Amino acid sequence: MKNTTMDLLAIGQKAKESSEILRKLDSQSRNKALLAMAKSLEEQKTVILEKNNQDVNNAREDGMATAMLERLTLDNKRFVSMVAGIRKIAQLPDPLAQTRKQWVNDLGLRISQRSVPLGVIGIIYESRPNVTADASSLCLKAGNAVILRGGKEAIATNIAIVEAIQTGLESVGLSKYCVQLISDPDRQLVTQLMQMNQYVDCLIPRGGAELIQNVVQNATVPVIETGVGNVHIYVHETADFEMAKAIIVNAKTQRPSVCNAVETIVVDEAFANAHLSQIGNALFDANVQILGDEQTRKLLPYSVQASEKDYKTEFLDLVVAVKVVKNYAQAIEHISRYSTGHSEAIITQDYSVAQDFMNDIDSAAVYVNASTRFTDGEVFGFGGEIGISTQKLHARGPMGLEALTTYKYLIEGSGQIRN
Amino acid sequence: MKNTTMDLLAIGQKAKESSEILRKLDSQSRNKALLAMAKSLEEQKTVILEKNNQDVNNAREDGMATAMLERLTLDNKRFVSMVAGIRKIAQLPDPLAQTRKQWVNDLGLRISQRSVPLGVIGIIYESRPNVTADASSLCLKAGNAVILRGGKEAIATNIAIVEAIQTGLESVGLSKYCVQLISDPDRQLVTQLMQMNQYVDCLIPRGGAELIQNVVQNATVPVIETGVGNVHIYVHETADFEMAKAIIVNAKTQRPSVCNAVETIVVDEAFANAHLSQIGNALFDANVQILGDEQTRKLLPYSVQASEKDYKTEFLDLVVAVKVVKNYAQAIEHISRYSTGHSEAIITQDYSVAQDFMNDIDSAAVYVNASTRFTDGEVFGFGGEIGISTQKLHARGPMGLEALTTYKYLIEGSGQIRN
Repeated sequence: MKNTTMDLLAIGQKAKESSEILRKLDSQSRNKALLAMAKSLEEQKTVILEKNNQDVNNAREDGMATAMLERLTLDNKRFVSMVAGIRKIAQLPDPLAQTRKQWVNDLGLRISQRSVPLGVIGIIYESRPNVTADASSLCLKAGNAVILRGGKEAIATNIAIVEAIQTGLESVGLSKYCVQLISDPDRQLVTQLMQMNQYVDCLIPRGGAELIQNVVQNATVPVIETGVGNVHIYVHETADFEMAKAIIVNAKTQRPSVCNAVETIVVDEAFANAHLSQIGNALFDANVQILGDEQTRKLLPYSVQASEKDYKTEFLDLVVAVKVVKNYAQAIEHISRYSTGHSEAIITQDYSVAQDFMNDIDSAAVYVNASTRFTDGEVFGFGGEIGISTQKLHARGPMGLEALTTYKYLIEGSGQIRN
Repeated sequence: MKNTTMDLLAIGQKAKESSEILRKLDSQSRNKALLAMAKSLEEQKTVILEKNNQDVNNAREDGMATAMLERLTLDNKRFVSMVAGIRKIAQLPDPLAQTRKQWVNDLGLRISQRSVPLGVIGIIYESRPNVTADASSLCLKAGNAVILRGGKEAIATNIAIVEAIQTGLESVGLSKYCVQLISDPDRQLVTQLMQMNQYVDCLIPRGGAELIQNVVQNATVPVIETGVGNVHIYVHETADFEMAKAIIVNAKTQRPSVCNAVETIVVDEAFANAHLSQIGNALFDANVQILGDEQTRKLLPYSVQASEKDYKTEFLDLVVAVKVVKNYAQAIEHISRYSTGHSEAIITQDYSVAQDFMNDIDSAAVYVNASTRFTDGEVFGFGGEIGISTQKLHARGPMGLEALTTYKYLIEGSGQIRN
């Protein structure tokens, strides 16, 4: 399955053609396609898991780190959950064919804003093979064709998954080109995908900072930037100690490898003097390494000196930076300087301070007295998630099906002309 | 007023700082600032008109075409209308501080989606000096700082307008850096603006195809692509002749230089045989040059042979291309191939055909029995317009104040952690 430069244009053109058909498909037909995809994946389960095993073995031989291998692995449990995910998406409400707004203007023109698909969506991601099925299903549910570019480590798995999806699509009379995979590892093809404005309406990069920056820097197709979360929790002096401890330990340790895990704790001096040692101990017991400023180091003798760079780092690991501040203003200043605009939380019992924090912090998700781990489409009730946007255009924060749609205006008249 | 590379970073940083203040300003304070801007512009009217006269004279000496000179000119009437526009924007409803949605999830987290400003907006435009005041006012009303880059022909006018605006801002205690102008004509600075992701949240290019493509190709900051309209009107065989004639003449001649003016008329053969000669005569009487295919040329002997390129061209002039088709399917095929996704209309008396057209055409504005000249924020009731988006992300079609906002999620809990 070798793609040349010529082929990528063909992929784009076929995606565009498929999107024209998907755009006009009713909700029932799109859901039927999703169920057929799920069924076909189940039928190909043995092959897919075998291919994944092959990918994992190759990656291990190439010396891939354990955490990465873990992401690459598609075991039985994950496979079942992946397929169940598709069936769940089929049951979600249709994000299309809704009239978002409608009014009649003073000339009697009836103006409607109607939800429609984006068209062709390019997804550029890393080694998690479940993204192949998740992203395809969400895009299809919202009436979009999709061009996938997964990490080369997962290539055999992705080819097998996409073949199963395409078989499913064809079994209900749809074109297999609704879901296509760029399987050639040539990096030049990714650049070409990012600049194929005539065929691609939107790019969603999913992965680490380097992948995302590559897309932002090189794309001419509109991009929804996702992901990088240098997440802060600010513990106000009025915070409830038990609540602060529980939230911090949860936000750091419940799943440290994800973007909504906390990376820096900012603590009011008064709270730190009273309680930081106990919170430090709880983190220490959970095997978290603590990087602290001078004051933290005095209170937590086992902590390591934090550098400027540490406050900028998304560790995605059992490591946390701690910064002790004199007051609210210093906390806001620190967070504003280092935040990537993903998720930040305050823990406080002070009503006014909570309101101020929600106004002052300019992040996609701003929390009061809750773990930052909740920044997630599922938790927000979107039924699925295509990523978490850290930019301000189009969609911000967890993106569900609505983020995969746009709208058009329909203007119905009776011969009106403009004076 | 020479900007160096160093200065542009300073402009960005000051815009960012100003946006932090604007973000927290209540509606009343933003409106007060707008009224102060309007007052200050009135006070500087003589200077501004003088500077504009200077710009126009220089441009005329440099051999600028009449149509361009017309756009550059700021006469008394336009000045009055520009200032009145700012006062009108002050009276519009506040697009901020609205809770778009709010719900409580199954863990008891209260999740709100609240409207907030985009932050810093870069506007890159051509020679119309009124854009300087219009764009600044709309951005400010929505709580954004703005960095302006107008055409070099209007430089003296733009400097005078921005100085007046800044004086107005300072008179109500706001920083003049809320509205800044890149007055150095060095093109390198535009490229730098387009890649200043750390300070600029969004770019809106306004102008011709070349300017817009330059921004799309070179920006790393998210862009809202505006403007280019290769607009079609399809005359179905059931169309009412008088209505068709009135709409076509209006859409072509009422203001031919704008993006919502029609560029190609697609006509069903049956209608063409019966009525095209009369419509052609009406266009001919209005000094419109007609470029037609074989069948058109037979019906309209004064028409000129249309080339493939003509069907792709946004004439922005008293020129129209005509294409005769056998049926609806051929019409949709022609429009889908050549449309830029801006505005298209059908003229028909057939209910089902009207419905089909609204489903089949994938443009920002789709009309039934009305002139395409209505694609306009003012007509749509937005009270103003920052441009007409021809992309699908964020905003599509006429963009009012809402397009200059984004949202953030506020999540209020009582100690919830994730299992």
